[in-house]
Amino acid sequence: MSSIHPAFYIEDIQVGQTAQQSKTITETDIILFSAVSMDTNAIHLDEDYAKTTRFGTRIVHGMLTGSLISSVLANRLPGPGTIFLTQTMKFLAPVHPGDTITATVTVLEVYPEKSRVRLETVCSVGGKRVLEGEALVMGVSRKNQK
Amino acid sequence: MSSIHPAFYIEDIQVGQTAQQSKTITETDIILFSAVSMDTNAIHLDEDYAKTTRFGTRIVHGMLTGSLISSVLANRLPGPGTIFLTQTMKFLAPVHPGDTITATVTVLEVYPEKSRVRLETVCSVGGKRVLEGEALVMGVSRKNQK
Amino acid sequence: MSSIHPAFYIEDIQVGQTAQQSKTITETDIILFSAVSMDTNAIHLDEDYAKTTRFGTRIVHGMLTGSLISSVLANRLPGPGTIFLTQTMKFLAPVHPGDTITATVTVLEVYPEKSRVRLETVCSVGGKRVLEGEALVMGVSRKNQK
Amino acid sequence: MSSIHPAFYIEDIQVGQTAQQSKTITETDIILFSAVSMDTNAIHLDEDYAKTTRFGTRIVHGMLTGSLISSVLANRLPGPGTIFLTQTMKFLAPVHPGDTITATVTVLEVYPEKSRVRLETVCSVGGKRVLEGEALVMGVSRKNQK
Repeated sequence: MSSIHPAFYIEDIQVGQTAQQSKTITETDIILFSAVSMDTNAIHLDEDYAKTTRFGTRIVHGMLTGSLISSVLANRLPGPGTIFLTQTMKFLAPVHPGDTITATVTVLEVYPEKSRVRLETVCSVGGKRVLEGEALVMGVSRKNQK
Repeated sequence: MSSIHPAFYIEDIQVGQTAQQSKTITETDIILFSAVSMDTNAIHLDEDYAKTTRFGTRIVHGMLTGSLISSVLANRLPGPGTIFLTQTMKFLAPVHPGDTITATVTVLEVYPEKSRVRLETVCSVGGKRVLEGEALVMGVSRKNQK
Repeated sequence: MSSIHPAFYIEDIQVGQTAQQSKTITETDIILFSAVSMDTNAIHLDEDYAKTTRFGTRIVHGMLTGSLISSVLANRLPGPGTIFLTQTMKFLAPVHPGDTITATVTVLEVYPEKSRVRLETVCSVGGKRVLEGEALVMGVSRKNQK
Repeated sequence: MSSIHPAFYIEDIQVGQTAQQSKTITETDIILFSAVSMDTNAIHLDEDYAKTTRFGTRIVHGMLTGSLISSVLANRLPGPGTIFLTQTMKFLAPVHPGDTITATVTVLEVYPEKSRVRLETVCSVGGKRVLEGEALVMGVSRKNQK
């Protein structure tokens, strides 16, 4: 039987607690993300066009950057078993192929009776924020765990 | 020389205007999305575990569902050249491999002086809403187009 | 319910009408194309070998270049709902990883009674033609649209 | 040093000679082909839409079927070192995910002085032709081989 252990049961999560995960975005990520999303925006895939824009070169899909948040929530905090309820994202600066994105989540509030956690979610490149927002997720309670 | 034509210049976009795009989510999409996002949550990748949850079977990453919104905005309305500024997403119901998701965007407000558009963004499966939210994007103005 | 809107109904397509789409071909594209086609020709995948040829470095699969035509037809002109009937391709010059290919289709003839369109199909890199040919496709008629 | 051996030097190729290769087309192939080509036509990716068409279910990109020809030419006849010059394709019947395509090439003419071969190129599923056309390729001559 498969079973999972959350990194943190809802009862053990503290306001201010933080976790992060980083990834270097390759051209492969951009091609695969365009495949799953069908988003073939020229700004992501067409270098000749991208050169004519204020970005100067291709940029990474904003939702690809955002998807790294999903990973930190699922792998680190709260960890395995987490279910996404809401996510807000403000895109602050462009991300380019080859950039290493760090996604950081920080607990803002815990609602133990509903097994929910509200977190600040930030993505940054070289210390500069490229995305910020909030997530509300459902974690795993010791009470509901078989 | 590469050049692009937006589906709609900001000056031609009307409140209430709508566009949509649909995709059947395959197991390949789930694998590729987990690769680009690093989100290897058991609920998406571990059928034995998923069977023990209230979902009964694996579910699609919420951010993968959300990424289809990115495609409609980039391909249809406003179309090529669109830049994402903000996105909110509320996940309402699970999506399973094999489900066909329809992403629909509807113009709520147009800010021509800033080339911005605010849109309602909804994803549905078989007529049932699975995600709802709003996007703020920057479109292409006739004035800025060379 | 899924539904589609062609960019152009057959009744609205004019001789001389043109559309294009560009993509920078990455090494990822070459690997993925070799995976789907099983075409593992050394000239595409073996840099040491490619250096010994008159090309000097690896070249992109000709059929990968040709596949961009498929995208312009399906996404832009006639657009969603288009069915491919015939395609001819003459490969004129090598394409290398990192090159940005622009695929351009131009309407040569419209056969409204059969919902068919014949188009010139050209791929170019930096203004130089690398592929030229013709496509015959079936578009969507207002009459057949429910 | 990398070096290659063509399956057949141009001097050894006979009119009527034939070679083939088969592949089962999976949903993965369709997603990856849509990534490299940017062809996100609903008829390939949207099962709900495809059900409303005369095809009844999603169909495989025609150019993906055609790309298997590229593989037979590069791997079998003439084999490694082959360069594509021209390709014509007539799409005769739909191919569906899960179908096994057999690509067969048959030598129609050999032009030894130019190291060229003209071949009939056919793709079939379960013995039924789904694509037919011709290819002109440049093979490897014993004279030019170092």
